[in-house]
Amino acid sequence: MLPWSKISSDSLPPLPENRIVVGVGSASVDFLATVAAYPKPDEKLTSTSSKVQGGGSAANALTCASRLGLNARLISKVADDLQGKSILEELQADGVDTSFMVVSKGGSSPFTYVIVDEQTKTRTGILTPGYPPMIPDDLSRSSLLSALDGARIVYSDVRFIETALLVAQEASCRNIPILVDADYKSEQLGDLLKLADYVVCSTKFPQAWTEAPSIPSALVSMLLRLPNIKFVVVTLGEEGCIMLERSVNEDLPTEEIDIDSLLELLMQKTDDSITFPTFVPSSVAKLRANKFGTVHGRLIVGTAEKIPPLELLDTTGAGDAFIGAVLYGILNYSNFNKDVFFIC
Amino acid sequence: MLPWSKISSDSLPPLPENRIVVGVGSASVDFLATVAAYPKPDEKLTSTSSKVQGGGSAANALTCASRLGLNARLISKVADDLQGKSILEELQADGVDTSFMVVSKGGSSPFTYVIVDEQTKTRTGILTPGYPPMIPDDLSRSSLLSALDGARIVYSDVRFIETALLVAQEASCRNIPILVDADYKSEQLGDLLKLADYVVCSTKFPQAWTEAPSIPSALVSMLLRLPNIKFVVVTLGEEGCIMLERSVNEDLPTEEIDIDSLLELLMQKTDDSITFPTFVPSSVAKLRANKFGTVHGRLIVGTAEKIPPLELLDTTGAGDAFIGAVLYGILNYSNFNKDVFFIC
Repeated sequence: MLPWSKISSDSLPPLPENRIVVGVGSASVDFLATVAAYPKPDEKLTSTSSKVQGGGSAANALTCASRLGLNARLISKVADDLQGKSILEELQADGVDTSFMVVSKGGSSPFTYVIVDEQTKTRTGILTPGYPPMIPDDLSRSSLLSALDGARIVYSDVRFIETALLVAQEASCRNIPILVDADYKSEQLGDLLKLADYVVCSTKFPQAWTEAPSIPSALVSMLLRLPNIKFVVVTLGEEGCIMLERSVNEDLPTEEIDIDSLLELLMQKTDDSITFPTFVPSSVAKLRANKFGTVHGRLIVGTAEKIPPLELLDTTGAGDAFIGAVLYGILNYSNFNKDVFFIC
Repeated sequence: MLPWSKISSDSLPPLPENRIVVGVGSASVDFLATVAAYPKPDEKLTSTSSKVQGGGSAANALTCASRLGLNARLISKVADDLQGKSILEELQADGVDTSFMVVSKGGSSPFTYVIVDEQTKTRTGILTPGYPPMIPDDLSRSSLLSALDGARIVYSDVRFIETALLVAQEASCRNIPILVDADYKSEQLGDLLKLADYVVCSTKFPQAWTEAPSIPSALVSMLLRLPNIKFVVVTLGEEGCIMLERSVNEDLPTEEIDIDSLLELLMQKTDDSITFPTFVPSSVAKLRANKFGTVHGRLIVGTAEKIPPLELLDTTGAGDAFIGAVLYGILNYSNFNKDVFFIC
């Protein structure tokens, strides 16, 4: 499922006892076709190589979580076709609990065709959704309650948003924290985000959702619009990530800092010569985004591992694996010190 | 296999008794994904609809030939996977004889992903060839001889060119005429074209192969380089086609006509107000292409049926179906009058 054979829990701290994560969202078959150059419209070309592997954001994230030692349960839908069978088998082989998956009789499983351009290293994905699509009625109340039994965190991508809302509402009633992967804008996503405790989003999402002029100001706007959110992380591919974490301590500073200027300061402190991932946190401050307002919190810049181009084989699902690691971080570190955890 | 449900032999002349056509080339599964707009590199998008159907040039052409009442035998290779099974079943349902198909144990069947752009109506195809590829050794001598037994014509696309050469050499020894679909330039294609009696080629092929400044002069160059060729047709999509037919009568005209000027004259005679396909033939003449030389023959302009945009559902395989109709035309008309046949 994940190209990251490196992911293992050997070098990580011991796991908490209760380590159940419930994921809702996409599980699909990815067909990766490598081409010498990106196809022009009406062109006919031949791929230089191809690969079939499991995919889908939620399935990838939970595969990573499971490889890190968490107990991962996936709520998703496939058909009883060959592709669906292979999706389930691959997840099971990675230790993901598929007993809450819905398998439709007839229909077709989700399928993503990924055009991998050898020249420019772009990865273009065309998803053909499964049929019939997942609806909340697919998940019986007893199945939902079993899935949430003992769960420490619920995670959802934006694929089956109505089902995700149902699960998140139930999780919210039980005080189970919720992490949402906000990959792109969609209807009802606002309702889901209102229930979220943590948000991880794609590079373009914060500005698309808030219409803010910069990513840092968009993060402030998100924390203002979503008062329950503890942190929001925006992923930036090889540039790493930016995290805005809300502070709820009593002794909060009153001096305001412009968040765009703060980001610049933090960026200057990152060291380009270091190949492994690092992070540079600010102090807790009153962070201002013009037009939007202020939030108390700290900004953290995370850098990505610098991988030599020749060693970089496949970035498919890397953003999803990042979320798997965030889930691990939340479960593992928030236990002993609620203020200090970061998993970059 | 073909989107042309209209193809039937009801309104056509009676078939000749011996009507066996042997095809060599591509048979694949086409996955057609319709998108609202052509994907940009690194974009992630969702298809608006999708369709799985048999494809591959040779398979499409032979499906058309079979629907027209010819006895079609296909030489191609698939794997014993689900896709391969569906390719064989679809061909059999259309009456194509698949007993000469090679089915590899393990491996994978050829798969073409077609991006159908709703906006611009382009169709971009990425072929992932089957594995292992077809080699001449895949076709036993006895199987080859059985396939050619009683055959009236051999047809080949350019997919498995070494196997096509083997079949064409054997056909040539037995005086079975050969039609080649020259879709794109490839190594050894020249060897195959030398054995051909008829060539149908894509819009870009004649100039790509001859480096001539215009399509008509490229057609003259092709007839000069390939002295066995009786005619070459170049397809032009909705613009119809152009055919250059060699004349071998004794009383040939000596006056030269520039072929580019002749094409212009013929084009002027086509009537844009007619919706059904028409053709405008020149008289037999000594046709000159500057730099290349002259050939005796006639030039024929064929127009395509004018289909209202709303009625145009799917053009996938239309060029292949055209070849199926050319095969039908050769078998049907060359019997009674060798000089007059045209099947537009």
